[in-house]
Amino acid sequence: MQNFYYNIPTKVYFGKGQIENLGAAMKAVSESVLLVYGGGSIKKNGLYDKVIDQLAKNGIRYCELSGVEPNPRIESVREGVRICRENELKAVLAVGGGSTIDCAKIIASGCCYDGDPWDQVVDNSKITEALPVAAVLTLAATGSEMDGFAVISDLSKNEKWGSGNELTKPVFSIMDPEYTFTVPARQTAAGTADIMSHTFENYFTSEKGAYLQARFCEGVLKTCIRYAPEAMEKPDSYEARANLMWASSMAINGICSYGENTAWAVHPMEHELSAFYDITHGVGLAILTPYWMEYVLNDETMWRFVEYGKNVWGITDGTDEEIARAAIEKTKEFFASLGLPSKLSEIGIDDEHFDIMAEKAAAGGLEYGFIPLYKDDVINIFRNAL
Amino acid sequence: MQNFYYNIPTKVYFGKGQIENLGAAMKAVSESVLLVYGGGSIKKNGLYDKVIDQLAKNGIRYCELSGVEPNPRIESVREGVRICRENELKAVLAVGGGSTIDCAKIIASGCCYDGDPWDQVVDNSKITEALPVAAVLTLAATGSEMDGFAVISDLSKNEKWGSGNELTKPVFSIMDPEYTFTVPARQTAAGTADIMSHTFENYFTSEKGAYLQARFCEGVLKTCIRYAPEAMEKPDSYEARANLMWASSMAINGICSYGENTAWAVHPMEHELSAFYDITHGVGLAILTPYWMEYVLNDETMWRFVEYGKNVWGITDGTDEEIARAAIEKTKEFFASLGLPSKLSEIGIDDEHFDIMAEKAAAGGLEYGFIPLYKDDVINIFRNAL
Repeated sequence: MQNFYYNIPTKVYFGKGQIENLGAAMKAVSESVLLVYGGGSIKKNGLYDKVIDQLAKNGIRYCELSGVEPNPRIESVREGVRICRENELKAVLAVGGGSTIDCAKIIASGCCYDGDPWDQVVDNSKITEALPVAAVLTLAATGSEMDGFAVISDLSKNEKWGSGNELTKPVFSIMDPEYTFTVPARQTAAGTADIMSHTFENYFTSEKGAYLQARFCEGVLKTCIRYAPEAMEKPDSYEARANLMWASSMAINGICSYGENTAWAVHPMEHELSAFYDITHGVGLAILTPYWMEYVLNDETMWRFVEYGKNVWGITDGTDEEIARAAIEKTKEFFASLGLPSKLSEIGIDDEHFDIMAEKAAAGGLEYGFIPLYKDDVINIFRNAL
Repeated sequence: MQNFYYNIPTKVYFGKGQIENLGAAMKAVSESVLLVYGGGSIKKNGLYDKVIDQLAKNGIRYCELSGVEPNPRIESVREGVRICRENELKAVLAVGGGSTIDCAKIIASGCCYDGDPWDQVVDNSKITEALPVAAVLTLAATGSEMDGFAVISDLSKNEKWGSGNELTKPVFSIMDPEYTFTVPARQTAAGTADIMSHTFENYFTSEKGAYLQARFCEGVLKTCIRYAPEAMEKPDSYEARANLMWASSMAINGICSYGENTAWAVHPMEHELSAFYDITHGVGLAILTPYWMEYVLNDETMWRFVEYGKNVWGITDGTDEEIARAAIEKTKEFFASLGLPSKLSEIGIDDEHFDIMAEKAAAGGLEYGFIPLYKDDVINIFRNAL
């Protein structure tokens, strides 16, 4: 097990009706806040009114930034920073899914930085101070509600990078699974692929001694496999939504990765797909994951695939290689069963930009991963996924 | 899944050499501290010198309270409060295992309370303020390094109660598995029984919807089963000690219990044993656990025992009842394989105090447990364990 520094400061109000705690929790942090949200679905389902009511009842001054995009843009971040500065707002409250929360995080750090916030996206060491961030979560997927990461795009440059650090971890999050009852099936599927991919990134590590963490990863994976189909069939299954929501946080808040030496592989590759084609992140991950698994399976990595097959899928018969390959096949079948595409060609991606996308992905630290990957490897994985 | 409030504020410096962070981390909390430790083993192994060096280098003023007992006494707490007050110390640093940390917590709350700290032991609502507590851990067992609980005894009254709340959670803990290399085999075994018992208390719940948390519990249990024998055979196995140490924290910090409606059962029963006989806590737990399991196994609780058998012990053959009973038998055999006693009579306990012990244990909330238990049930379980 590697040395690590554990720090998960986010307080979580989890469950039905927890929005009632928003006002008091927010007030304890700041008396003024930028309210950040997306396309307006929170106005249709009544959540917006509840949030405003909580802020008003507690005398919290607020301004709004709405219309934050999926794959949030640097332009929205800049606009948020501008509003905060002009109105002297001292905290940022995101109401939405991972995109909204990610946007809020870099607004929060951007407010404490003299230059353009894009500098902080490409270099997280430039985040040395941030306004407090809080979140009301409406989608189980990215885990942004309980970690420090933020992924921001500049589509004018076809660039999408992850940033953030300890300072951008939310101070608190309200997580009511009922707010995800209205998430459509295809988004539930994509969110599940995202949760599973975060877990895979942590699980497929060369560190053999982080035994407990690996068992936690398997728990998250089993939870996704158990509940994603149920949440798609019965969107108002509280048990399914609650387990997926808590799994989304646990997949990425550190519980599954502290003590491992993980360097993510599939995420940097997928970020290039969505930077160039603006596809749904989880869809890209679902397509690439099985091909990445096939590509990195070898004698050295076999042990972990065998554990994966046995402990997650319950495969006990066969040689190690047979178990490993069956587990990869199960992964592919599972994503397909959720209605997710299995090939890049299905979502209109061809090999036109493979070269530049692979070059950029490889620059994202892929040589330090489970198996070191370089530009040509990424091109091969993209080709296999065509 | 039940509603819950997640709050684990403790920062953890985990791994080799992390003691180097003690001084700076302590200094950020307070410039004066009460150093609390036990029987002096930290002076033999050099840890004491390192701690003093860290405090000195960072200009932190300190006084000492040494000789804290296993099953720490209220007298030690009172003495700690007195020293803090006389010397105006503003934080408490425990260096040791759970007993030392528990003692430090009630010293910390006692310093902010006008009456006798025993009031706070029997009624945790009287803990409304506390000095910051920090810990350097030397034993994987109670998980006190990452939770708010403290168990304190008044042997003059044969009383032992658990207390503590959010305010007594350590602000940081230094967890270097190397400091547990010198823990003797029998204490390693008892500590493992404690970790497993905390996990069982969370795992055996009537809440069926906390699926992810149950998988995490299974991960902790598998970790104990995998590594306790190795740590006893090879005391300096870093991998074994590290996994047991992290498991000790995860078993009780909330990760395994948030969202469940757990009311502990075996701990209140064991507390009576050690209140009357001053036995090692983990030994009492190891004896009682399988008898408690047999006693609460019925048609309604079967499902969880079957999951336990399948997911932790890999038992797949047989009827549900056969799997459940085999899992309980495996539990008993495992504790025996660690050299732990299997009967109360083996450690000199007879039925003399069963009546009063059962009455007191039943008053500890046993009627709200996995299966409601009353005084007569506790007597039956004690008798079965004789």
